[in-house]
Amino acid sequence: MALTPEQKAEIEAQRAETQLTARAVSPGMEKRLYTAHEVLDHGLVRVIDYMGDDAAICQAARVSYGRGTKAVSNDTGLIRYLMRHWHSTPFEMCEVKFHVKLPVFVARQWIRHRTANVNEYSARYSILDREFYIPAPDKLAAQSTVNNQGRGAVLEGAEAARVLDILREDAMRSYDHYEDMLTPDEDAGKQGLARELARMNLPANIYTQWYWKIDLHNLFHFLRLRADHHAQYEIRVYAATMCDIVKDWVPAAYSAFEDYRLGGVNLSGKAVELLKRRLAGEVVTQENSGMSKGEWREFTDVWG
Amino acid sequence: MALTPEQKAEIEAQRAETQLTARAVSPGMEKRLYTAHEVLDHGLVRVIDYMGDDAAICQAARVSYGRGTKAVSNDTGLIRYLMRHWHSTPFEMCEVKFHVKLPVFVARQWIRHRTANVNEYSARYSILDREFYIPAPDKLAAQSTVNNQGRGAVLEGAEAARVLDILREDAMRSYDHYEDMLTPDEDAGKQGLARELARMNLPANIYTQWYWKIDLHNLFHFLRLRADHHAQYEIRVYAATMCDIVKDWVPAAYSAFEDYRLGGVNLSGKAVELLKRRLAGEVVTQENSGMSKGEWREFTDVWG
Amino acid sequence: MALTPEQKAEIEAQRAETQLTARAVSPGMEKRLYTAHEVLDHGLVRVIDYMGDDAAICQAARVSYGRGTKAVSNDTGLIRYLMRHWHSTPFEMCEVKFHVKLPVFVARQWIRHRTANVNEYSARYSILDREFYIPAPDKLAAQSTVNNQGRGAVLEGAEAARVLDILREDAMRSYDHYEDMLTPDEDAGKQGLARELARMNLPANIYTQWYWKIDLHNLFHFLRLRADHHAQYEIRVYAATMCDIVKDWVPAAYSAFEDYRLGGVNLSGKAVELLKRRLAGEVVTQENSGMSKGEWREFTDVWG
Amino acid sequence: MALTPEQKAEIEAQRAETQLTARAVSPGMEKRLYTAHEVLDHGLVRVIDYMGDDAAICQAARVSYGRGTKAVSNDTGLIRYLMRHWHSTPFEMCEVKFHVKLPVFVARQWIRHRTANVNEYSARYSILDREFYIPAPDKLAAQSTVNNQGRGAVLEGAEAARVLDILREDAMRSYDHYEDMLTPDEDAGKQGLARELARMNLPANIYTQWYWKIDLHNLFHFLRLRADHHAQYEIRVYAATMCDIVKDWVPAAYSAFEDYRLGGVNLSGKAVELLKRRLAGEVVTQENSGMSKGEWREFTDVWG
Repeated sequence: MALTPEQKAEIEAQRAETQLTARAVSPGMEKRLYTAHEVLDHGLVRVIDYMGDDAAICQAARVSYGRGTKAVSNDTGLIRYLMRHWHSTPFEMCEVKFHVKLPVFVARQWIRHRTANVNEYSARYSILDREFYIPAPDKLAAQSTVNNQGRGAVLEGAEAARVLDILREDAMRSYDHYEDMLTPDEDAGKQGLARELARMNLPANIYTQWYWKIDLHNLFHFLRLRADHHAQYEIRVYAATMCDIVKDWVPAAYSAFEDYRLGGVNLSGKAVELLKRRLAGEVVTQENSGMSKGEWREFTDVWG
Repeated sequence: MALTPEQKAEIEAQRAETQLTARAVSPGMEKRLYTAHEVLDHGLVRVIDYMGDDAAICQAARVSYGRGTKAVSNDTGLIRYLMRHWHSTPFEMCEVKFHVKLPVFVARQWIRHRTANVNEYSARYSILDREFYIPAPDKLAAQSTVNNQGRGAVLEGAEAARVLDILREDAMRSYDHYEDMLTPDEDAGKQGLARELARMNLPANIYTQWYWKIDLHNLFHFLRLRADHHAQYEIRVYAATMCDIVKDWVPAAYSAFEDYRLGGVNLSGKAVELLKRRLAGEVVTQENSGMSKGEWREFTDVWG
Repeated sequence: MALTPEQKAEIEAQRAETQLTARAVSPGMEKRLYTAHEVLDHGLVRVIDYMGDDAAICQAARVSYGRGTKAVSNDTGLIRYLMRHWHSTPFEMCEVKFHVKLPVFVARQWIRHRTANVNEYSARYSILDREFYIPAPDKLAAQSTVNNQGRGAVLEGAEAARVLDILREDAMRSYDHYEDMLTPDEDAGKQGLARELARMNLPANIYTQWYWKIDLHNLFHFLRLRADHHAQYEIRVYAATMCDIVKDWVPAAYSAFEDYRLGGVNLSGKAVELLKRRLAGEVVTQENSGMSKGEWREFTDVWG
Repeated sequence: MALTPEQKAEIEAQRAETQLTARAVSPGMEKRLYTAHEVLDHGLVRVIDYMGDDAAICQAARVSYGRGTKAVSNDTGLIRYLMRHWHSTPFEMCEVKFHVKLPVFVARQWIRHRTANVNEYSARYSILDREFYIPAPDKLAAQSTVNNQGRGAVLEGAEAARVLDILREDAMRSYDHYEDMLTPDEDAGKQGLARELARMNLPANIYTQWYWKIDLHNLFHFLRLRADHHAQYEIRVYAATMCDIVKDWVPAAYSAFEDYRLGGVNLSGKAVELLKRRLAGEVVTQENSGMSKGEWREFTDVWG
């Protein structure tokens, strides 16, 4: 990603301009504000604004008049309790707004999370930049042979080279044609195609950008699904960047999230029963487990 | 409304504690922060936090890297354009969090707006205070004789006195009984009823409180419906207080909202046609209007 | 609950009137349609309409042109897979609409689930009926001494009798006053208080009713929280009734829900580690668990 | 659009299979069920399921036990009243599920409406078909010179021919490369690129498909914005097809929607004042209107 000098200057100007506020301030988040965190080859994540901190979660849970107890240990315990018991509303009381630049095929997965506010750069109104995602060689993976929606080994040699050539050349050609179709030329009697039509020639690895605003509870839900190892690599790196940011913003809430969600496991009633049989010393096999093959594989992936 | 000295001290402490932030700051809103704005006899509205300002709306609409143009006139024009053309997403980029104390029957209307985050004081977990809404004498209205869900003339004399007596006495008695049922008395072999059950004896004019967080677009929708003269007086006063606050927060957005929504009118296709006939000099009557009686009355209420 | 003869006739008329449709039909749900399932002393749950069945979930997951495979075993396996991997969108493709009659304090908990469509009987527009929830003697519980939002032992003797007397008498008196305030009397110069005001005198155990429509995914979320033993008894009985209904509607989806959600357990990262240590033969205590007392108690409640 | 014989057979089979139901049945909608309504060159809209009819809207508004009054005129009046006064919840009580095939750039606009349930065909899991949207010659428009997000005159001659050539050739080449990258060839040591990566080479005019489910209130909101003449042609044709379908499904609700929303006009406070001045005989100009140029142009577009 290469920010233009103008963009860098705008970001620096925003970071430099501080004012007094009586609102809750998160010191960890103030350090993150506006800075462009690079993701993939041309993507970025920037925090534009945020509301609330760990204490604000507790304050909302208590519907209190003031900032409440100053004992951080109390707040941490309350936050863990709320997370463990799926009390989601206090976490909804924090909000964050990101500026994200991302390939269109990633944006299409991302937007399926509907509980957020989005304002996307409009290709009806404006002309997109010539920026395309081209995977790094070690991310160029074959189709998985065991998982219909996963990746297998890394491509090598001539195949890898050819794929990269195709992606680069098709991207450049489609963009050349996009520009060509858009550009009027009076002498040649050329009017220039409408932007809302010309964009249809651009492939899904072109970058778009948007402002994306979400509350902490729904962000955690997004991160649980998208920071998971089943998620596609190209969206997972965005989720990982956002996890780092959230950790700085609301350390206690993030720590509870890490323990109960990211690092947690959902057991079915069947799985609970199996574990109890194992704890009682029984040897359990797929045959006597009552589980399907797929479910048994997932179970033993965790429990051996 | 009488805040306790502790509550006043907590509010003052929050107002006094300011820190530096690089986020967008709304000077008008900073003055409002935490202060208890009185509503009805014991109710209140307090701003607990906010995100964004007029410039943030424009910045999101432009998906820009910086704060953008400093020309306020440009921003105002853009905001009016966005409001006029129902571009709602940039307004969703501002967020506000209120602490509200309100009678339960008002809370029940309020909660029907689902696009907000709510954390209510729990009467399963805690004991409610002895605070009930008793209407001021000039708000004690008869059932409207023309509108099934509206008010008519103010009650007078013996009737008014009797209604106020009933409301006061029933409130006090129900609260006495609530306390009585809750309170254990070991000597008398009395365990004390569970809070989650005892609360069922309390009438709908008891006060509850919640933290309520919403984005600006959805808040405008709420205010358009609830600041309207068709809304029940007891919720309208909350909406009016919030209108004043929003005006200080995002003056340009509020001004556009006032012109296009609050002060605006929705015309049906039929009404457009009627107005055109009138502009052409024709005298239109209900008979030749194609409108029902109700619709015609509403039309002439606006256009004479 | 006593339905009036008119209500019974209306229900029978609806049940009797069948027509041909080419839509998906759930035989188990057709049997439930319109029938009033009694809940509490005056409450009810009725299915008014539904969309989809088990096969429709699979059809949506496959975005298919037809009803797809007729092998029920395939569908069951797919549904279990979708549930296990939190693929929620196919379950959102089924929808159900209920008519529910319930005490106001239950309605206030219920409405916190915002992902549903609700149309409530309006006490601004209409007069409520004289129907109040009075707990059965074996549901009259004391406040729990260990759980701030739970119940303990059943009340007995004089205390129980007194509580029931209070609830009954306050309900009747408040309703008498409600009627009195509402009723105009021209001779006595009494106009009658507006309905939107008079209702404030009614306690939270009065019954209200609404139409409530929700998709299957969000209904499962509701049922998981409200059929849970931590939920208040008075809402749990509604959830239990709806569980029975859903079981008849989409048997495969309900069975997966029962295994993975209702009967399932969420383990934190810490809890996973503890179980692995136990499986490896170690004796784990709260002291060496890294868990708080509350968390340890919840852990041992499940695992001994 | 060319359905395969298998797809046609599946559709016919579904249409032929009727069963008895006690639910509300809309005769107009039964005729539409499953049939593929062609849109653009390869797109389609099919109704997969629906819930409710005009009477169901009224039944919900009345929270009634039966189907209520049989007088259609009463229902029509009530529906018009509800629409005029923005009572949205009764319209939310109807639901419809569509199967839609549409170009990706249209899908990206469409999905911005978040109040719907969506299940899209997965290009991580499956291989997309070789079907691309190529505009008909009379839809190949130049960029508007007055509206930044609109179209101007139709392209002609060499320019039109060249644009069509580019769109066709780039589509075919990108698809050839997509297939090539995907296909393993053991002899050549070629593993085949993962589907989730290969798809990034496909342009935005490729067709995707999804199941899309929405309630009637939110569908009306979608149709108001997308059937509007400001909407891009390629989404407007989908909206127009859906308008025809909704008209058959709930004729009274659609008629009210047409009068109050589609054919209606929103006037600002300023515009109301201007019209009143005109009705009083005054000649109003932009100069004395207080409106900006853009707003004045929009005003005179409607009122002359």
